[in-house]
Amino acid sequence: RRTGDPEVVYGAGKTPEQVVAILRTLHERHPDRAVLATRLSEEAMAYVASALPEAEVHAVARSATLGPLPEPRGTVAVLSAGTSDAPVAAEAALSVRVHGAGVDLVQDVGVAGLHRLLAVRDRLEDADCLIVVAGMEGALPSVVGGLTGVPLVAVPTSVGYGASFGGLSALLGMLNSCAPGVTVVNIDNGYGAGVFAARVARAAGPRR
Amino acid sequence: RRTGDPEVVYGAGKTPEQVVAILRTLHERHPDRAVLATRLSEEAMAYVASALPEAEVHAVARSATLGPLPEPRGTVAVLSAGTSDAPVAAEAALSVRVHGAGVDLVQDVGVAGLHRLLAVRDRLEDADCLIVVAGMEGALPSVVGGLTGVPLVAVPTSVGYGASFGGLSALLGMLNSCAPGVTVVNIDNGYGAGVFAARVARAAGPRR
Amino acid sequence: RRTGDPEVVYGAGKTPEQVVAILRTLHERHPDRAVLATRLSEEAMAYVASALPEAEVHAVARSATLGPLPEPRGTVAVLSAGTSDAPVAAEAALSVRVHGAGVDLVQDVGVAGLHRLLAVRDRLEDADCLIVVAGMEGALPSVVGGLTGVPLVAVPTSVGYGASFGGLSALLGMLNSCAPGVTVVNIDNGYGAGVFAARVARAAGPRR
Amino acid sequence: RRTGDPEVVYGAGKTPEQVVAILRTLHERHPDRAVLATRLSEEAMAYVASALPEAEVHAVARSATLGPLPEPRGTVAVLSAGTSDAPVAAEAALSVRVHGAGVDLVQDVGVAGLHRLLAVRDRLEDADCLIVVAGMEGALPSVVGGLTGVPLVAVPTSVGYGASFGGLSALLGMLNSCAPGVTVVNIDNGYGAGVFAARVARAAGPRR
Amino acid sequence: RRTGDPEVVYGAGKTPEQVVAILRTLHERHPDRAVLATRLSEEAMAYVASALPEAEVHAVARSATLGPLPEPRGTVAVLSAGTSDAPVAAEAALSVRVHGAGVDLVQDVGVAGLHRLLAVRDRLEDADCLIVVAGMEGALPSVVGGLTGVPLVAVPTSVGYGASFGGLSALLGMLNSCAPGVTVVNIDNGYGAGVFAARVARAAGPRR
Amino acid sequence: RRTGDPEVVYGAGKTPEQVVAILRTLHERHPDRAVLATRLSEEAMAYVASALPEAEVHAVARSATLGPLPEPRGTVAVLSAGTSDAPVAAEAALSVRVHGAGVDLVQDVGVAGLHRLLAVRDRLEDADCLIVVAGMEGALPSVVGGLTGVPLVAVPTSVGYGASFGGLSALLGMLNSCAPGVTVVNIDNGYGAGVFAARVARAAGPRR
Amino acid sequence: RRTGDPEVVYGAGKTPEQVVAILRTLHERHPDRAVLATRLSEEAMAYVASALPEAEVHAVARSATLGPLPEPRGTVAVLSAGTSDAPVAAEAALSVRVHGAGVDLVQDVGVAGLHRLLAVRDRLEDADCLIVVAGMEGALPSVVGGLTGVPLVAVPTSVGYGASFGGLSALLGMLNSCAPGVTVVNIDNGYGAGVFAARVARAAGPRR
Amino acid sequence: RRTGDPEVVYGAGKTPEQVVAILRTLHERHPDRAVLATRLSEEAMAYVASALPEAEVHAVARSATLGPLPEPRGTVAVLSAGTSDAPVAAEAALSVRVHGAGVDLVQDVGVAGLHRLLAVRDRLEDADCLIVVAGMEGALPSVVGGLTGVPLVAVPTSVGYGASFGGLSALLGMLNSCAPGVTVVNIDNGYGAGVFAARVARAAGPRR
Ligand SMILES: Nc1ncnc2c1ncn2[C@@H]1O[C@H](COP(=O)(O)O)[C@@H](O)[C@H]1O
Ligand SMILES: Nc1ncnc2c1ncn2[C@@H]1O[C@H](COP(=O)(O)O)[C@@H](O)[C@H]1O
Ligand SMILES: Nc1ncnc2c1ncn2[C@@H]1O[C@H](COP(=O)(O)O)[C@@H](O)[C@H]1O
Ligand SMILES: Nc1ncnc2c1ncn2[C@@H]1O[C@H](COP(=O)(O)O)[C@@H](O)[C@H]1O
Ligand SMILES: [Mg+2]
Ligand SMILES: [Mg+2]
Ligand SMILES: [Mg+2]
Ligand SMILES: [Mg+2]
Ligand SMILES: [Mg+2]
Ligand SMILES: [Mg+2]
Ligand SMILES: [Mg+2]
Ligand SMILES: [Mg+2]
Repeated sequence: RRTGDPEVVYGAGKTPEQVVAILRTLHERHPDRAVLATRLSEEAMAYVASALPEAEVHAVARSATLGPLPEPRGTVAVLSAGTSDAPVAAEAALSVRVHGAGVDLVQDVGVAGLHRLLAVRDRLEDADCLIVVAGMEGALPSVVGGLTGVPLVAVPTSVGYGASFGGLSALLGMLNSCAPGVTVVNIDNGYGAGVFAARVARAAGPRR
Repeated sequence: RRTGDPEVVYGAGKTPEQVVAILRTLHERHPDRAVLATRLSEEAMAYVASALPEAEVHAVARSATLGPLPEPRGTVAVLSAGTSDAPVAAEAALSVRVHGAGVDLVQDVGVAGLHRLLAVRDRLEDADCLIVVAGMEGALPSVVGGLTGVPLVAVPTSVGYGASFGGLSALLGMLNSCAPGVTVVNIDNGYGAGVFAARVARAAGPRR
Repeated sequence: RRTGDPEVVYGAGKTPEQVVAILRTLHERHPDRAVLATRLSEEAMAYVASALPEAEVHAVARSATLGPLPEPRGTVAVLSAGTSDAPVAAEAALSVRVHGAGVDLVQDVGVAGLHRLLAVRDRLEDADCLIVVAGMEGALPSVVGGLTGVPLVAVPTSVGYGASFGGLSALLGMLNSCAPGVTVVNIDNGYGAGVFAARVARAAGPRR
Repeated sequence: RRTGDPEVVYGAGKTPEQVVAILRTLHERHPDRAVLATRLSEEAMAYVASALPEAEVHAVARSATLGPLPEPRGTVAVLSAGTSDAPVAAEAALSVRVHGAGVDLVQDVGVAGLHRLLAVRDRLEDADCLIVVAGMEGALPSVVGGLTGVPLVAVPTSVGYGASFGGLSALLGMLNSCAPGVTVVNIDNGYGAGVFAARVARAAGPRR
Repeated sequence: RRTGDPEVVYGAGKTPEQVVAILRTLHERHPDRAVLATRLSEEAMAYVASALPEAEVHAVARSATLGPLPEPRGTVAVLSAGTSDAPVAAEAALSVRVHGAGVDLVQDVGVAGLHRLLAVRDRLEDADCLIVVAGMEGALPSVVGGLTGVPLVAVPTSVGYGASFGGLSALLGMLNSCAPGVTVVNIDNGYGAGVFAARVARAAGPRR
Repeated sequence: RRTGDPEVVYGAGKTPEQVVAILRTLHERHPDRAVLATRLSEEAMAYVASALPEAEVHAVARSATLGPLPEPRGTVAVLSAGTSDAPVAAEAALSVRVHGAGVDLVQDVGVAGLHRLLAVRDRLEDADCLIVVAGMEGALPSVVGGLTGVPLVAVPTSVGYGASFGGLSALLGMLNSCAPGVTVVNIDNGYGAGVFAARVARAAGPRR
Repeated sequence: RRTGDPEVVYGAGKTPEQVVAILRTLHERHPDRAVLATRLSEEAMAYVASALPEAEVHAVARSATLGPLPEPRGTVAVLSAGTSDAPVAAEAALSVRVHGAGVDLVQDVGVAGLHRLLAVRDRLEDADCLIVVAGMEGALPSVVGGLTGVPLVAVPTSVGYGASFGGLSALLGMLNSCAPGVTVVNIDNGYGAGVFAARVARAAGPRR
Repeated sequence: RRTGDPEVVYGAGKTPEQVVAILRTLHERHPDRAVLATRLSEEAMAYVASALPEAEVHAVARSATLGPLPEPRGTVAVLSAGTSDAPVAAEAALSVRVHGAGVDLVQDVGVAGLHRLLAVRDRLEDADCLIVVAGMEGALPSVVGGLTGVPLVAVPTSVGYGASFGGLSALLGMLNSCAPGVTVVNIDNGYGAGVFAARVARAAGPRR
């Protein structure tokens, strides 16, 4: 792990006790910066809250942080359409913050209701990087990518049923986007999108 | 084949001579209505043009008709985005006409250029049924389906490369559309969409 | 959401309390028309029944409605073969009713027992649109589509095992139907088929 | 190869010269019984015809035989719907004959035209085994299997486009048939179906 | 259902009460012949045993029968390799018996222990039809098909892990068998194989 | 198309005449900036060279440009391993240049020869964005992503055979990269990666 | 089972009682050599520990052995990256030991932290065979295979989410490795890799 | 490339001139050892033969070597069944020789003709490593792996049609082999199997 990058715990498959123990150890090593734990079960979030009172539990993101978040530099706008995509969007947003950029969270903007999306065009243009989260057919990044030239990272989610095949449909849709300049991460990988977008936003100079 | 329906020749895998022979036979049986031949090779189109001067060759649709087209009843709007989708859109439009409905062809309206799409909203509302043709990520039906409540048939095309997997990406995108009331046909199946939409449009009563 | 369309709650992944709260809110906004909630768990159906006595719970469709259903205009025939497909057929039928068309439910008509299907040909011809629900090999729409020219929406179901791959087999079968004019929706998507078919049936003028 | 079984040459990927040489060698070894060569190119069929005048070339089956066919014992009915499936049906029929059973070829009976199928029910019942060849959605075996209890081998073909995925759609449809007692062979494998069905038919005793 | 065929209940997704009720109803209709119920849960088997004392529960086959089995005519040999494939083999064997043929069950013969297989060659030759059950790579039918010319139905099972993909590996292996005359049914479909093989065995005349 | 962005012609499926005509038209509209044409056939490249002497043909990138390239701002390092990946890397590099950033092309650095990769670490750190092109198992982005925190766009290529399935293997490898902050584009999509990376590099302020 | 090979019990799908009974029986048959049981549930491991005190339970490997391990001959180095891959690596290592070779377990060496891998190069060169265990993108074997010419068996694991598709991504990556001389076993199949590598290591003569 | 390993040219996608040029360059660098070129077109083989008279062209293996082959150490037996698998078997055998081990080529041993396989058991036991090449269902490695404990590398080939899906069926079959100690390489990758097996055979000490 490159010096200065925050430590991150991937909580899936870990017991609440393991999560708390790792958080505590990593926090002691670098008390001056935040440790992030993602993919926490209900039990793990509850145990973190009780065992580490100074930790902050982010319920929607199914995550927790311990230690002070860095000063934000640059801005990442995180867009999503439905309530089902909210956990992935929240994981992305929190990952952006922990990796040192600011977040503008834009929810409830879907391709089947264009006016809400058109109403937030200014916020898109003001961002240094966009994260667009969508399940089902994953069409939102194509539409957003047609509206703005800000670098755009698309996150397919496993939201859907039947022929969504666990997020495959959204993933393929985003990879085939007709809007140029769209990049994609793994299904439900809000964390990876957040790390990437924070790097882009932090490096961005003043807008020209 | 139910009485009254036009006869259709599926040209793929047939020699020019076979296509012409079948067209001629079917036309003689019912000289008062059109026979349609689709999926014609360059050679087949040329041979039809020379051997059957009274036939009409539709180059973009890779199709030919022989005999008079029926009076149109009702209107189907056929939408597509890029030039690569034009042959499938043209096959759909011609199939609509041959099956007895009128066509409003709306081209060059893609999800990455919303203003052109928003500019044709009236034409969408004026139609009795919509056919929306799209390749790559197949997002156009979701956006159109969010703009109007007119019945919408989506046609995925095999346009694309890499992870488009021969139209699979567009097909899955359309099946998972977040806009309710979107139905889908096989990849590149402009003909099937046209038959269906013509039936819907012909049955539609006066708008209320 | 276009004015006049009913509100719909997608119950999968929502708690009983959330379902009841949303139903109540949406109903208060438009007490004069029905709200529909689909994909309800046993618990959600029970809680709706007790918390909203004026709601109607549709057990087979795993759904509930609150508020008066609209006057039906036009007719959709909903066909299915086996008892396992009944929930999807019921979701389709209820969605048709909520979106303003009438329903003729035709059950127990499968491809392996043709005489029962042939015995209902009149009911097929009397409908303005057909919804054909089938799992396993999904062959029913092809057979029905060969019997009638009424517009036909096919719904593949996830009924089956082994090489049915969660409904993929039925979906592919329907997309490749040799009967022209068959359109398809996502696996188990009775709701989407119902919205589409209701639109077609409501727009249909008097039969000619 | 078990004693008495005919020799078979799989012609795909073999030069015309190789095919002729192998046919000649195998024929010399057992001049009293037929050798079969399948999957022949146009060139191979032409070269067999000129180099082995005593051979019989079966153009539709893309095959050739050399030496006397055995006396038929029992009957296999081979059914197919469209002209595109004819080569596979012909390969199956010829393989049945070469392996010692008689053939009743029933063509142009598809699921979208039930009356033609119903008209041949007697021929189905008279057979000792059925081979049902179908592409696209592969629905024909389910319908035939619902009409009769004669053992039925289904052959999916690669006929179709788009989501037929080279015969996968027909294969899955047949494997998931709702009619009990349907077995399946590889896509386009008329030969394998013929060998199997001939064995069943030859072993069948007098009907009871 | 053709007259004379036994009635069969597919138990998956049915409650113990439903299974018992259907068995009772069907038995009353034809007390002189067996009703078969397959895919029973532990609970359903227990409830059948207590509620229908005259029923026979077949634990390995996860099935039950009610009413007298028919006189066997002809013989089907059912082969399998491992203990994990035993339930599917037992379902196949029971289905054969219920559909009127006799069974020779040959277990523990796998491709990785050829001597046990070679030791039972006589039993293979004595059968009128073979059912070969195998999971994982599904190689057993190819080896058996190379040893004998008796008609062979292969049943892939979902036994395996990783790249067995729920039985897909065994299914593909069997469809591509290099032994001619092998036919295949759906993954885990012992029932379908049994119905088919019983039909073949019952029709077989005296061996020649 | 947002004002200021260069025009791009997708040459696949276009005739040499069409390519030249579109290049000429777009160039006349904005003679002050470059037009890019990608995916050109040998014929198209030759015809562009002869018909548009002022155009520059980029043979490895299978592309051509017409009009002056913009002043580069920021730097994108483009990495690839084998010679087979060179066309995609060249398409990416040219797209970066046309979209206004500078390029550092780093070739022949593969995961099976780590020392060459370790020898160029400085060049990686000096870039504002990385494009990593790889076929077969697509492992290079994971290794590079472990060496540096510069934003990294991975491009899978269709180089490989057998189980590479036309680039699917490399695509899945990159999507599942264990190095955080890797984003991915479609198989062989050097163009899309170039547009994205140029945007990131141009926006980057002075390094801190 | 060839004489001298240890007996192995595949514990998946077996009850604790069955596992203990089989272990006991096999141990009594050959008390002088070890019996191995793999894929044990928590319950099975606990029951083995209490019912067979002389057995050794290997918690990480989810396995147990009963009877003396053989003298090791030759050495297999087992490499893995993350903690999630530890169970598969431990199953591989134990299988190596039970099949008669020695083990050098090298953990926490991943492609995203090359220095740890480079630090153990001597241990790789000292081994007679390598087993490399990796999930997600499965890139580790390519990197290790580029560092050494020792025979290398790669084991993909089902560790990952989304587009890892249960280990498919790692499997494809390893099959397409650009490092020559890499062979692959089934997903999570530490046992098979161990048997193979032990055979290679035991046969290896003194290093030259 | 590790010192001492032969240089190898992958001929696919290279012109005859490129192949000859690379062979010449690599040969000049190390005239004392062989250079290998694989996957050569007919044209490339002819041009190598004429331009490099001292080169040896291996027609079945579609390969060429230039320079003296090393002294063989240890033996690899290469098994295959049909003539269609011969090119892959020959590529494997030649790669073994070029990488310094001896070869025993065993052809025409398939699972459907066990006696030929059983007749060569001694040759299997005499080898230090086995390469087993098979297409279609890929069953041969399972049968061979049950006969001997010699380390076995399986090579699936793309031989087959329909549901063989370009070698996928054979690949999955081999990965799921019920014989322990079977490892697998990519479809048609005789080269990779040869490199691996030669390493194992060269390291093998005297048999015990
Ligand atoms: N059974 C269903 N299948 C697919 N989509 C549905 C279903 N029921 C409701 N929907 C859609 O889900 C939307 C409501 O989603 P939500 O706001 O999450 O409750 C509705 O407007 C419908 O478009
Ligand atoms: N059309 C066919 N499809 C599948 N297998 C076939 C076909 N024709 C022949 N075969 C098989 O191929 C074998 C001959 O292969 P070969 O020696 O390569 O000509 C025969 O014994 C048959 O088992
Ligand atoms: N190599 C490429 N890969 C993917 N998309 C491309 C490529 N080159 C151009 N494009 C896209 O294709 C559009 C032009 O398409 P067309 O109008 O058909 O020439 C451009 O605006 C780009 O968005
Ligand atoms: N038949 C083959 N299959 C797979 N890889 C091969 C084959 N032949 C050569 N290679 C690999 O390709 C490399 C040479 O690739 P190239 O530099 O493109 O000629 C060699 O070092 C081998 O690792
Ligand atoms: Mg969405
Ligand atoms: Mg599109
Ligand atoms: Mg059905
Ligand atoms: Mg068909
Ligand atoms: Mg098996
Ligand atoms: Mg690579
Ligand atoms: Mg890994
Ligand atoms: Mg084989």
